[in-house]
Amino acid sequence: MEEKGILFILSGPSGVGKGTVRKQLFEEDSDLQYSISVTTRAPREGEQDGTDYFFKSREQFENMIENDELIEYAEYVGNYYGTPKQYVEDTLNQGKDVFLEIEVQGAMKVRESLPEGVFIFLFPPSLEELKNRIMHRGTESEELIRNRLLEAKKEIDMMDAYDYVVVNDEIERAVRRIQSIVVSEHCKRERVAKQYKKALGSDLS
Amino acid sequence: MEEKGILFILSGPSGVGKGTVRKQLFEEDSDLQYSISVTTRAPREGEQDGTDYFFKSREQFENMIENDELIEYAEYVGNYYGTPKQYVEDTLNQGKDVFLEIEVQGAMKVRESLPEGVFIFLFPPSLEELKNRIMHRGTESEELIRNRLLEAKKEIDMMDAYDYVVVNDEIERAVRRIQSIVVSEHCKRERVAKQYKKALGSDLS
Repeated sequence: MEEKGILFILSGPSGVGKGTVRKQLFEEDSDLQYSISVTTRAPREGEQDGTDYFFKSREQFENMIENDELIEYAEYVGNYYGTPKQYVEDTLNQGKDVFLEIEVQGAMKVRESLPEGVFIFLFPPSLEELKNRIMHRGTESEELIRNRLLEAKKEIDMMDAYDYVVVNDEIERAVRRIQSIVVSEHCKRERVAKQYKKALGSDLS
Repeated sequence: MEEKGILFILSGPSGVGKGTVRKQLFEEDSDLQYSISVTTRAPREGEQDGTDYFFKSREQFENMIENDELIEYAEYVGNYYGTPKQYVEDTLNQGKDVFLEIEVQGAMKVRESLPEGVFIFLFPPSLEELKNRIMHRGTESEELIRNRLLEAKKEIDMMDAYDYVVVNDEIERAVRRIQSIVVSEHCKRERVAKQYKKALGSDLS
């Protein structure tokens, strides 16, 4: 039974531990394909083109932006980083799951072009704590508290564009939850029924 | 964070191995609550009312049917068996997941009254095999083959009312898939976001 791969996007507020969780996930899981980014920064010793990154010149990268060849991109300290559309699509078509770990803003861009992706929001360990932190920082002005509340509200609103929310209370548990999401997404009737029907299709109609 | 339990319904064509999978699942998983059935059959030695079954007289059971106190019921060899609505609802309200293992027809009835349940369809190990069995039984009449194809079609159509399809290729793997579905359902944004918003709600509005 041939099945197209599934695109998983892990995102969440900065500082929540996305990188750590993703790293742990990839140490345990060999079936997922981590999306290789395109960058304009120079390769470091030992880094290979097409394995660590796709290395491009600034001109090449800007051409990719113009030709809509990137799902999302950003610029950090003078270098571009982006997610190449072709690579993601090719990998999915090979039946492999692709895993992206990106910032919330990047994830929203991915949602626009690839809404069929599975969007996972990594959440801070404790909301009670977040709330307490926001409300009870005795030394801070009322205005700062208000701003922080608004910021938290924005984050919560972002959550609405995601399919799953995983609490990062413990790395191992967060990883296990993400692994469960991967397995269960492959059992979703909408995905599987189509193949099963296709397999039996012509004889049943 | 208080959360209502989730109702999981495992079903599928007879002979697919529902009972075996459910038994193995409960040996490994203590967080799930198996739904206790109501029955009119006499308790066997050692069986306790409210633990193994809710034991009722025929009159009591028929009153339950009349008063719409059963999610679904059936009669086997002169005895009634049913799923009590109150018990399921109380357990869910206590924040415990409830697990039902029932026939396809019963599952369809549950879907009518509790559409928020998570419906898992257990599928035979190999569709190729099913197809081959249907098509290549040399000794059988064309009419019988046609009937079997129609039966298979009905089963496939039933699948459309389910949320997940789990292939029972190997008991351990099927159990792991169901466990993953349980975990990932608890991470679904629709479920979790509401609580998170509720927890922060008044301060953010």
